[in-house]
Amino acid sequence: MSDGRIPVAVLGATGNVGQRFVQLLECHPWFRVAELVASERSAGKTYREATDWRLSATMPESAAGLMVQGYDADLQSPVVFSGLPGEVAGEIEQRLAARGHAVLSNTSTHRMEPDVPLLIPEVNADHARAIETQRKNRGWSGYIVTNPNCSTIHLVLALKPLHDAYGLEGVLATTLQAVSGAGYPGVPSLDMIDNVVPYIGGEEEKIEVEAQKLLGGYDPAQGFQPAAVVFSAHCNRVPVRDGHTECVSVKLANPATPEEIIETFESFRGRPQELGLPSAPPQPVIVRREPNRPQPVFDRDDAKGMASIVGRVRPCPLLGSKFVVLGHNTVRGAAGASVLNAELFKVDGLLPV
Amino acid sequence: MSDGRIPVAVLGATGNVGQRFVQLLECHPWFRVAELVASERSAGKTYREATDWRLSATMPESAAGLMVQGYDADLQSPVVFSGLPGEVAGEIEQRLAARGHAVLSNTSTHRMEPDVPLLIPEVNADHARAIETQRKNRGWSGYIVTNPNCSTIHLVLALKPLHDAYGLEGVLATTLQAVSGAGYPGVPSLDMIDNVVPYIGGEEEKIEVEAQKLLGGYDPAQGFQPAAVVFSAHCNRVPVRDGHTECVSVKLANPATPEEIIETFESFRGRPQELGLPSAPPQPVIVRREPNRPQPVFDRDDAKGMASIVGRVRPCPLLGSKFVVLGHNTVRGAAGASVLNAELFKVDGLLPV
Amino acid sequence: MSDGRIPVAVLGATGNVGQRFVQLLECHPWFRVAELVASERSAGKTYREATDWRLSATMPESAAGLMVQGYDADLQSPVVFSGLPGEVAGEIEQRLAARGHAVLSNTSTHRMEPDVPLLIPEVNADHARAIETQRKNRGWSGYIVTNPNCSTIHLVLALKPLHDAYGLEGVLATTLQAVSGAGYPGVPSLDMIDNVVPYIGGEEEKIEVEAQKLLGGYDPAQGFQPAAVVFSAHCNRVPVRDGHTECVSVKLANPATPEEIIETFESFRGRPQELGLPSAPPQPVIVRREPNRPQPVFDRDDAKGMASIVGRVRPCPLLGSKFVVLGHNTVRGAAGASVLNAELFKVDGLLPV
Amino acid sequence: MSDGRIPVAVLGATGNVGQRFVQLLECHPWFRVAELVASERSAGKTYREATDWRLSATMPESAAGLMVQGYDADLQSPVVFSGLPGEVAGEIEQRLAARGHAVLSNTSTHRMEPDVPLLIPEVNADHARAIETQRKNRGWSGYIVTNPNCSTIHLVLALKPLHDAYGLEGVLATTLQAVSGAGYPGVPSLDMIDNVVPYIGGEEEKIEVEAQKLLGGYDPAQGFQPAAVVFSAHCNRVPVRDGHTECVSVKLANPATPEEIIETFESFRGRPQELGLPSAPPQPVIVRREPNRPQPVFDRDDAKGMASIVGRVRPCPLLGSKFVVLGHNTVRGAAGASVLNAELFKVDGLLPV
Repeated sequence: MSDGRIPVAVLGATGNVGQRFVQLLECHPWFRVAELVASERSAGKTYREATDWRLSATMPESAAGLMVQGYDADLQSPVVFSGLPGEVAGEIEQRLAARGHAVLSNTSTHRMEPDVPLLIPEVNADHARAIETQRKNRGWSGYIVTNPNCSTIHLVLALKPLHDAYGLEGVLATTLQAVSGAGYPGVPSLDMIDNVVPYIGGEEEKIEVEAQKLLGGYDPAQGFQPAAVVFSAHCNRVPVRDGHTECVSVKLANPATPEEIIETFESFRGRPQELGLPSAPPQPVIVRREPNRPQPVFDRDDAKGMASIVGRVRPCPLLGSKFVVLGHNTVRGAAGASVLNAELFKVDGLLPV
Repeated sequence: MSDGRIPVAVLGATGNVGQRFVQLLECHPWFRVAELVASERSAGKTYREATDWRLSATMPESAAGLMVQGYDADLQSPVVFSGLPGEVAGEIEQRLAARGHAVLSNTSTHRMEPDVPLLIPEVNADHARAIETQRKNRGWSGYIVTNPNCSTIHLVLALKPLHDAYGLEGVLATTLQAVSGAGYPGVPSLDMIDNVVPYIGGEEEKIEVEAQKLLGGYDPAQGFQPAAVVFSAHCNRVPVRDGHTECVSVKLANPATPEEIIETFESFRGRPQELGLPSAPPQPVIVRREPNRPQPVFDRDDAKGMASIVGRVRPCPLLGSKFVVLGHNTVRGAAGASVLNAELFKVDGLLPV
Repeated sequence: MSDGRIPVAVLGATGNVGQRFVQLLECHPWFRVAELVASERSAGKTYREATDWRLSATMPESAAGLMVQGYDADLQSPVVFSGLPGEVAGEIEQRLAARGHAVLSNTSTHRMEPDVPLLIPEVNADHARAIETQRKNRGWSGYIVTNPNCSTIHLVLALKPLHDAYGLEGVLATTLQAVSGAGYPGVPSLDMIDNVVPYIGGEEEKIEVEAQKLLGGYDPAQGFQPAAVVFSAHCNRVPVRDGHTECVSVKLANPATPEEIIETFESFRGRPQELGLPSAPPQPVIVRREPNRPQPVFDRDDAKGMASIVGRVRPCPLLGSKFVVLGHNTVRGAAGASVLNAELFKVDGLLPV
Repeated sequence: MSDGRIPVAVLGATGNVGQRFVQLLECHPWFRVAELVASERSAGKTYREATDWRLSATMPESAAGLMVQGYDADLQSPVVFSGLPGEVAGEIEQRLAARGHAVLSNTSTHRMEPDVPLLIPEVNADHARAIETQRKNRGWSGYIVTNPNCSTIHLVLALKPLHDAYGLEGVLATTLQAVSGAGYPGVPSLDMIDNVVPYIGGEEEKIEVEAQKLLGGYDPAQGFQPAAVVFSAHCNRVPVRDGHTECVSVKLANPATPEEIIETFESFRGRPQELGLPSAPPQPVIVRREPNRPQPVFDRDDAKGMASIVGRVRPCPLLGSKFVVLGHNTVRGAAGASVLNAELFKVDGLLPV
């Protein structure tokens, strides 16, 4: 069973994000899914029995036979990926961190806490240093690291190089979000066939505050300092399975032409690319030059779902520049983000292994 | 056959907008569909034979038996509604106006010309005066009056009361547009199932310039003066049959609270309401207070598709205020707009009858 | 408040079918919605507060202010329409029937019981006689009358004239059913976008047995005698909001040509048509002659949703004849069916008023 | 450029099926795409310029730079795959066959001709012998081999083992077909959002006659003898991108239980499996045991889209047995079928190389 790979646990393993963790980790070179955790309804069954697998015809064989454990399980894996529902995540993740596990969480619960890194390796890898303060503050042998909301992550991946190059002052983002972001059963089909829902509870606020934390600084003495960039989001649910589309207008301190912005997007690289992390996309931001791209059904799986795809870079009469960004919301926007964080931590010697 | 109602012709009668004209005029108290015009492929057939009716189970009986005429028909009706495709509209509409017809056009061709009114009766009824200049300039006995693009009209209906009350400085609008706006066959289903297309050719530019003309002034000496409001639009096609949803952020010269803005929307009335025009909605802008409305499938037919439905009025961290506006794109956004223009002209004695 | 119309109660008033009852009864000439019943979650709220209205922009004003009562309410209305969920319907409906109410139920619970009429007024109006036996058997002063499953009703409306004219021997029906048939929240959008679910729990069995009861006889001495017709159903859920499409092949004892079958469909009339009941469609079965009709989005609202729309009548190489039938599943397929039953009972003096 | 693989041409390369050929052949071990042919509109452009690639984010690099040739091109590749539109296929395919090319065609034009094999390697590999007669009859140095319609192929893959084991007498199949089967632009989205179209021109007839040819015999003296099995099809278009679902009832000469039928499906193997052809699925028919599978969005890509997925095997009250079969319509249902035919011919020494 042991093959030299680090055993990991997946919390919320039967849900949409949990299934994506299992899928992404199936052939991972460094990590091996060893433990699966879900609610009491699933505990005691095999993963095959407990799960209505919805990512492809059949679930990975390696996971199918594992026994699902309940939320109070005494886990052995040093690394824990969490796709838990928000309402139960808090306590469970804290308990595991206290016991020494590295908890890489996709859940929103701890994201904005003052000693919890909210991390995108290409954007703010240095925020990882906050785990030292976190451990000290809380007396934990492990820690919690979070990744942003599925809309925030693709927005910020695109904004980071612009912020570095031209200085962001304001951002207006309107999202057209896929239904997989709401989990399963999630959005009723009577709300989606021939329809748009111009509201996703809490989503606009998450984007507005998470983006500021991500683009801001970290200092052990003073903690996180949000970036002085004003964000405004309009969030919509649309009849798309996977892939969030975002229409973005930006105000730059030093205005740039579309050609300059495209060049800035395309030359952007971060630590995952420098380190050649297994899940890193070769380019974090891919630019499409066709007038009508990116589109979710065609582009969401580009770079295995780990990149943000930008298109339609053009002047904005009001704010200066505008563009469209698309990204896979359950790969780079959720499970893949946590996995990339874990890969960075492994290289940086931060995993408890 | 004559029942005292004014006989009207519908150009482009077999298309999406043409069908909507026929439907809206079926029981109109003032107008009677007397002539139907379409391309040579349909000419010489009855409307029933020529048309793949797609608005309900069966087409209005009164229209079904009419013989469709070709583009070069010598029309008898004083009033002509045009839902012609842009590529043929120019010449045909001009020829008819020259011959004395009142041409009420939904086509974009003439909208931005310096002597052609682009009209929303609640917004800029006084622009109708430009038809005098138009006739003089062109030596026509008739005239052309246009209504705006389907996205522009609902946006501007919502913006007009805000502009009057608080002074608009800038507007950022992101649209989620229905497929009926693209006509038939229009958008292929392979581009819409499980997808969003973040681009509609020419649409963003139309919104940006039409809105300025609509909110601007008119003076016989100086012509149209565009409003000094900066507009920026992001346009998307989404898998919705009818009803355009628009996410709007506005910068006001005199900022207002959401409560004030809601009050301003709800108290807005225009000449159609004062005059009690047959197709006028009781309230041009209806406000929904639920957190997740308006939605196309539920709200597009409110007020028989003739009103703009607003919701989610709230502060915008970047521009000051934001909200969602939804409207039926082929009723108030197209055929219904032309019909309301004709009703206004009748009351004002501007129809050649 | 009293206007001479019979006060009625709606059970399960906040659900999909309950909302349809409220909508259909809004302007009913004989019945007036006086009481609304739903689960304890809604009891004590006004209908407006308790209900997420999903049939149009706004709910009927007359119902909006009514106070919703709980399942154990002591109802005053002599006539009760039930759109209760199956798991609670049994006991509640029985209690009300025992107390003297006429319970017209859309729920499946009692449909196949040996003393409960399963009724389509055009098909088996004489089955209503079973309520005498029912009252005697059960010692009730009221009674329960049911209408069939949403797929069964449109299938049987189309089959009845064929059975009478040519003798049915076998029927194979494959359904493509709308999501509104599953209630709300019902089918998750992750199961419907870009997908078909070839299974609806219990549906095939319902069609197979209900159709036999409907086409069979009733005799007070011997009860219901199922028709000797073999039915086989394949049921599918498809991404359609309203309107079930059914592909039907039939084996007739006396084979008929498509022209004869069309003539048989079109000349079919039943007691609702003879009596001119308010909700009766002029023709129970409407035939479309276009090669590609009926289609749900265009035809489901024909005859206000109360007729079955047939098309593509043609020979079946295997069974003899085949055709497509479409019907609105929550109007004639649910609430409208119960209302029509009540109208028949009123004329026949069977209502407790 | 030459790497030992056989150079092949793709006709109709820019269309839906043509794109699928290019995708499937990208890494093929035996064939290499050397020539691309499309209409004059595309001729003279690179494939990248000429094609609106719709299968994934980016087209295969190896094809992108090839120059597209017109229909009258003088091709060098011995093997030609055809995804031509029916209206032009006839003459072009014949001209190429006459000149010595092996034409493997997905187009319907020649399928039912008395000397043209209609081939599924698992079903009727021996029909390939008809190419000798074809060459002799027509004086050609090459030949045309066809594969069936996208619905027929998955139906017949499932029926073949049943026919061999139990003797088919009658088959009733109702299809729910994906829009990709209609090409691009194909089905308008106004015909698919919230809708079903219960008609596909010519499709029912194709299924009924092609299936008989496929399950029938071939004898050089007497030609093709259609199987004495009666087929009846109902064809529907549904809002699904890829993957045709078919509800099938069968009458067997020797009735079998569901368990026996499942065992028969699962043990079915054909020549592609025996020979281990590169595109052969390990099992031509895969059986799902869940009550609600197969479903297009989850199962169409199973076995890389080359297998037929069966589920819901159960008794049919009318015909004896019923089940659901699903298959990818542009992989095994179109391009993949032609490729598998070519692989069989290579092993059998029938390719002109």
